[in-house]
Amino acid sequence: MKTQDLLSKSAHAMRFSAIRRMSAVIEKPGIISFAPGQPSPETFPVADFDRILRRVVAEEASGAFQYTQTRGFAPLLEAVADYARAKGIESHPAERMITEGSQQGLDLVTRVLVDPGDVVLVESPSYVGALSAFRAARARMVGVGLDEEGLDLDDLRRRVRHERELGHHVKFLYVVPNYQNPSGITHALERRLGLLEAARELELLIVEDDPYGDVYFDQPPPPAIRALDKEGRVLYLSSFSKILAPGLRTAFVIGPETLLAKIEIAKQAANLCGSGLDQRVVLACLREGLIEVQKERIRPYYRGKCQAMLAALSREMPAGVTWTHPTGGLFVWLRLPEGRDAESLLEAAVAEGVAYVPGSPFFAADDDGANTMRLTFAKEDVPKIEDGVRRLAKVINA
Amino acid sequence: MKTQDLLSKSAHAMRFSAIRRMSAVIEKPGIISFAPGQPSPETFPVADFDRILRRVVAEEASGAFQYTQTRGFAPLLEAVADYARAKGIESHPAERMITEGSQQGLDLVTRVLVDPGDVVLVESPSYVGALSAFRAARARMVGVGLDEEGLDLDDLRRRVRHERELGHHVKFLYVVPNYQNPSGITHALERRLGLLEAARELELLIVEDDPYGDVYFDQPPPPAIRALDKEGRVLYLSSFSKILAPGLRTAFVIGPETLLAKIEIAKQAANLCGSGLDQRVVLACLREGLIEVQKERIRPYYRGKCQAMLAALSREMPAGVTWTHPTGGLFVWLRLPEGRDAESLLEAAVAEGVAYVPGSPFFAADDDGANTMRLTFAKEDVPKIEDGVRRLAKVINA
Repeated sequence: MKTQDLLSKSAHAMRFSAIRRMSAVIEKPGIISFAPGQPSPETFPVADFDRILRRVVAEEASGAFQYTQTRGFAPLLEAVADYARAKGIESHPAERMITEGSQQGLDLVTRVLVDPGDVVLVESPSYVGALSAFRAARARMVGVGLDEEGLDLDDLRRRVRHERELGHHVKFLYVVPNYQNPSGITHALERRLGLLEAARELELLIVEDDPYGDVYFDQPPPPAIRALDKEGRVLYLSSFSKILAPGLRTAFVIGPETLLAKIEIAKQAANLCGSGLDQRVVLACLREGLIEVQKERIRPYYRGKCQAMLAALSREMPAGVTWTHPTGGLFVWLRLPEGRDAESLLEAAVAEGVAYVPGSPFFAADDDGANTMRLTFAKEDVPKIEDGVRRLAKVINA
Repeated sequence: MKTQDLLSKSAHAMRFSAIRRMSAVIEKPGIISFAPGQPSPETFPVADFDRILRRVVAEEASGAFQYTQTRGFAPLLEAVADYARAKGIESHPAERMITEGSQQGLDLVTRVLVDPGDVVLVESPSYVGALSAFRAARARMVGVGLDEEGLDLDDLRRRVRHERELGHHVKFLYVVPNYQNPSGITHALERRLGLLEAARELELLIVEDDPYGDVYFDQPPPPAIRALDKEGRVLYLSSFSKILAPGLRTAFVIGPETLLAKIEIAKQAANLCGSGLDQRVVLACLREGLIEVQKERIRPYYRGKCQAMLAALSREMPAGVTWTHPTGGLFVWLRLPEGRDAESLLEAAVAEGVAYVPGSPFFAADDDGANTMRLTFAKEDVPKIEDGVRRLAKVINA
């Protein structure tokens, strides 16, 4: 039967992500890969997980394998409240929920807020997983300028006003203020305060996504925008994927009660509840203070790799190529001279034995960022990082 | 800030489920509960899970905690193909996907097929979780008559033609043909064949949800509709929640390739991927043949409880009260005399120490099924089942 004719408007608009298409090109044995958007498995506390799993099963038996609450396992919600409070984020129980990865949080937030054609403001560039959730809701995505200090607030004001003049309904601004994926950029404190001021002026809801805040190299990032907000205009998402392990699919949302009530109903329809086992492992990690242990473990690990990549870029890259200087996270953002195309360069790079992700899928508009690329230092060791940057420079020079 | 004004049309239409509201009334200590929609934790193979978890962590170490593929862990997809093949369901790799519970499968299917106002046909009564997914997509839900043999096929034809005459786009028919939640009804083989014939005539896609097929008491149910289908017009969903444990959140979809391609993109936006650990536990259970062991374990367990409930109903219920006679699953469906209201009876029942779920939330139309209720025999032991039915009869007689 012709199922094609049955597809929804949203499904008609869905396309296989450019990154997924490229991964077919990239995944070659022996290639030095700066491409994946994943934390290094070397950082996962496997021995602790093993010990915790044994204890959970011994202590809770079948209870650990029953359905959990849609909002999440109650003791985990409590522990998450403490974890967020330590970051200056206060919340009532009705303002909190566990989600199966931050991606689910983003999807649910989008579903309860966005009708087709509604405006979602995003950083230029922005996290590609968020863009895919906004696209699935058929949002009108509008990019806002981003520099190494954070969001261009004049551009934000201009864009919001322009969209409203066009009669569009602006639903929220989506930001990843700490060590952003893909750019590695962190919003400075002044920009965060300025953003809150602009949001007040513009009556704007902010969706703050913070998966990398704990993955800092030396100093922690400035306070979360949600911690600085006095008006309840920030919905905060965070995840344990980068500090513990992404396979545990455990993240959380803290936001205005009205929205959380709707998000809970949406989650019930979306997947009923999360994994009881995963939530119990994360709970034990929080209770035992493993997050702090992991921070100490991860910081020198990623710092060393990032420094190696930045030093290699300085040594190897020709004039006209620029890049960001992250102080945490997993990514460096590289900009080729105007007119160069990172996507068409990829084939030559792969032939040279090095892979990256071209930057254009990270932009709201299809034709932006052709000369940019995302590099992760998470996967490879220092000698390979140095070798890979050398190969990349060779391809760019060619 | 006034977040209420920012809600999407879908969120405005969302309401807290009637069942969830009632659970506040029901959850009293010491109450005999025929209410929950959960398998009994006594059936979960906890010792096996414990052993498997130790082995998975020992053998795969950090690999078990990294992101998995959106479609699901590849070896699990293979094992699921074999599992489905044993039920007569053949599939190509492009036709299969793992989902985090059947609820996620239902939600994703709905998202790729349904635009607001599109028709989804459902059994009367139907599974409430499916209704909530259809409601979230703002579908027009149309109920089709159901008797102890299965779907009323004349009613199906009439309703499809009527909806099309009204200019509505009929997207699919949703059925739970084995030991349905809430009714316990199983579609007879002749009805399944008749349904496929009607679907051919009507050019109708069938979404077949089969979480209970393995939970039969004596004889397995007739072949899946998907196994009888020669035209690719059935999308089949099943889950390991009832035969292994629901907290593992592992289910699967097998359906037309075009739809699966879209469902994969939708899943990537919805939650990226499932729990690596849960998927590995289910994989080991499939490889070790634990499913077969569980079937042998579960069959007498639920059969005995169901028989106790049916016998008690025969003994205790007054004339005019009728109920279904399930041959598997977890539920009995009870019908009070016309004019009685199961929802308004609930308070008296709870005061008498027994709880159930009123039937009306299981119908597409709000005013249907007021005189019906769902009873599960899964939770309580035989003496409590007998005591509970006695109490329930007392309340109905009063």
